Amino acid sequence: MLAHRLIERKRDGGRIEPGEWRAVALAYAKGHIPDYQMSALLMACFIRGLDRGETAALTEAMLVSGDRLDLKHLPLPRIDKHSTGGVGDKVSLVLAPLVASLGVAVPMMSGRSLGHTGGTLDKLESIPGFRTDLSLAQARAQIERLGCVMIGQTPEIAPADKKMYALRDATATVESIPLIASSIMSKKLAEDLNGLVLDIKRGSGAFLPELERVLHLADVMIKLGADHGCPCVALVTAMDRPLGRACGNALEVEEAIAALKNEGPPDLMEVTYALGAEMLVLAGVAEDLIDARRDLERAIADGRAAERFQRIIEAQGGNPAVVDDPAVLPQAAECEIFGAPRRGFVARIEPKAIGRGIIEMGGGRTRVEDQADPTVGFVITARPGDWVEAGEPMATIFARDRAGVGSGRQALRSSVVIADEAEPPLPLISHRVTGAGAEPYRAD
Amino acid sequence: MLAHRLIERKRDGGRIEPGEWRAVALAYAKGHIPDYQMSALLMACFIRGLDRGETAALTEAMLVSGDRLDLKHLPLPRIDKHSTGGVGDKVSLVLAPLVASLGVAVPMMSGRSLGHTGGTLDKLESIPGFRTDLSLAQARAQIERLGCVMIGQTPEIAPADKKMYALRDATATVESIPLIASSIMSKKLAEDLNGLVLDIKRGSGAFLPELERVLHLADVMIKLGADHGCPCVALVTAMDRPLGRACGNALEVEEAIAALKNEGPPDLMEVTYALGAEMLVLAGVAEDLIDARRDLERAIADGRAAERFQRIIEAQGGNPAVVDDPAVLPQAAECEIFGAPRRGFVARIEPKAIGRGIIEMGGGRTRVEDQADPTVGFVITARPGDWVEAGEPMATIFARDRAGVGSGRQALRSSVVIADEAEPPLPLISHRVTGAGAEPYRAD
Repeated sequence: MLAHRLIERKRDGGRIEPGEWRAVALAYAKGHIPDYQMSALLMACFIRGLDRGETAALTEAMLVSGDRLDLKHLPLPRIDKHSTGGVGDKVSLVLAPLVASLGVAVPMMSGRSLGHTGGTLDKLESIPGFRTDLSLAQARAQIERLGCVMIGQTPEIAPADKKMYALRDATATVESIPLIASSIMSKKLAEDLNGLVLDIKRGSGAFLPELERVLHLADVMIKLGADHGCPCVALVTAMDRPLGRACGNALEVEEAIAALKNEGPPDLMEVTYALGAEMLVLAGVAEDLIDARRDLERAIADGRAAERFQRIIEAQGGNPAVVDDPAVLPQAAECEIFGAPRRGFVARIEPKAIGRGIIEMGGGRTRVEDQADPTVGFVITARPGDWVEAGEPMATIFARDRAGVGSGRQALRSSVVIADEAEPPLPLISHRVTGAGAEPYRAD
Repeated sequence: MLAHRLIERKRDGGRIEPGEWRAVALAYAKGHIPDYQMSALLMACFIRGLDRGETAALTEAMLVSGDRLDLKHLPLPRIDKHSTGGVGDKVSLVLAPLVASLGVAVPMMSGRSLGHTGGTLDKLESIPGFRTDLSLAQARAQIERLGCVMIGQTPEIAPADKKMYALRDATATVESIPLIASSIMSKKLAEDLNGLVLDIKRGSGAFLPELERVLHLADVMIKLGADHGCPCVALVTAMDRPLGRACGNALEVEEAIAALKNEGPPDLMEVTYALGAEMLVLAGVAEDLIDARRDLERAIADGRAAERFQRIIEAQGGNPAVVDDPAVLPQAAECEIFGAPRRGFVARIEPKAIGRGIIEMGGGRTRVEDQADPTVGFVITARPGDWVEAGEPMATIFARDRAGVGSGRQALRSSVVIADEAEPPLPLISHRVTGAGAEPYRAD
């Protein structure tokens, strides 16, 4: 009767109290509330909204539905980064080992690809042997040893959120600010962090395209962090085009390794440094963002970051040779150059069409249980604003067969717009948001 | 992907097209769409609403998800009555045999008790041996023979509605005008009717208490009927107090049998005659409502109606002796008189508290699969507006044990309000609604 009463109240625009959120999250995690009641409640929450107190209570309820990583005994500061998801976003793969190599513990729990966006777990698993399903005890031991672990949400962490997240994906209740914020923060707060950096995507390829909603989401998450003694800083970054050049699991791992060797595309390097600098300052291991950035650049330049990634791969069962030789990664059977359909400016490279193209080619999931082919995807060398001649190579399509190449070509055709003029794309990093509010981002 | 797309669209206030309703209803009936997606869609429909075209399309989609009774070959006109549900509402038990005894086929498919309201099937099943689960073929054969059958919604009739109705009950998506209207009408249209009379309850014990929404519901259903060549007339009746005196399955059967012998309480007789007269006129077997009423009164007075009920009971496996001897019905182990807690006017007898009291005493369901005890309930002899002295008997509680008596006493205490003054209750029948609109009801 509890679930029915809460559904009814939220349906009519009422408020659910903290004790009720705790009861409903726990009962749902234990299977005492069926999915069909929870999905009705989630839809009512989606449409009617949650106020700040309810969002905090839901976050807390999902957090206490499970265990925490419990890392308080570590001598290192514990900082993580979370991205709201995009296409070509392999920043976590570069950032986690990079920041860990500078004396910060990064207990990174990531997600799988869902919808048109990629997932860090799927990317990592394209490294032969790499395991992301460590137990909490294994994860703790690895953090103690290497300062970093890169795993999925374990069954012990926020189980209510884990079930709700899968349900939301199936019931069109994803794009809700309080539901997104509480889902992310319940998991991140379970990591026992000293600080959290948020990469909040805006633009057509983001779950929340509009700047206003993005800033609202940042504000909600920062306040949830503050309530739990976890200071947060958010950067608003562009997802009106893919980040970097590679899109597709194995291709992105290759690009992330290049970035760890200082050979990544400029936008990927820039976002990585900006987020990493915030992490180092929150950790207290750098004086300010300028110092922090210099430290990051050094750890890349002298190979510490790449070496740390190699050790993490080895510790998690992957083939560490991949860092020196990308040919260790599974390779696509077919590839084809995509030439510009006409001359002009590259006006748009729409990320959603790219992400959906990868799914179409067998490289993503339409359901959580689907197996993704890690080899397929795109390397897109053209950037919005570039001038191209007709037929000039813009991208390479990687596919498992000729039909896949055809799907890839189709996806690029619907993604890429060439025009006589091109509006400037969104600034790569447009805002920095802290507890004090949002300000335009200045790259110092 | 179909369900996800439709959920998303309705969530954002969009429109679902007729072909999409057909596809989603059929897929749901066949189990290809899981309950958790349907409940999210239903909640979005509840909050965002359905326009007239969508309501018609959903009705049609649920109708064609299954079979029809197919009674077109019958020489008799086919008319049914549907009530939106209340407490003490045993009108169907009197009306179906009464109208059938006057040469009208009444193919009555009823529901079970759910929420605080009673269900015709549960009442009938308190008659020893009575079966409500006839097949469509058996139902057809009985209608040919006796002009009446009283059964539940068979698995062949509107299966999409059957599943959705159970889901709505569990997910707080019942009280929506388009969902109520399409659910009722998809079943009733499957009965292949020449006309339908609707008893739409208003007041605190009704699913839709407010007159405005009740008239809206009547209008929507009448239009749905008209679209399918099934003329409808609706009467708006009072559910701010129980109808008649008996509340509880076996007790209501006893009262219905009394009514068939012209010994029912005046309000029950009045509502039965009013609805029956509309049925006879729709059937074309009476000139006007005045003639029709006279025919009904005669069929009661000369015993034809009671005899028809006896034959129906016998045909459906029940013990026909019940019509002559109510002691055939199961009897409660305990009973107790409830005296007025103080002197004054009976200001309220709240039906919801009565209905919930019956559930509390074991006489109702909180889930479809629950077994109800047919013996428990109340006979409430006091009416709103009556003057009572302190301790004067107002009701009798029927229970299976002393604890049940206690629950019943509790229910009456929260239902009955005695005050120094009493507002008049709602008029028993306040409006008559046809395709031409609503008008105040005049008892001629």
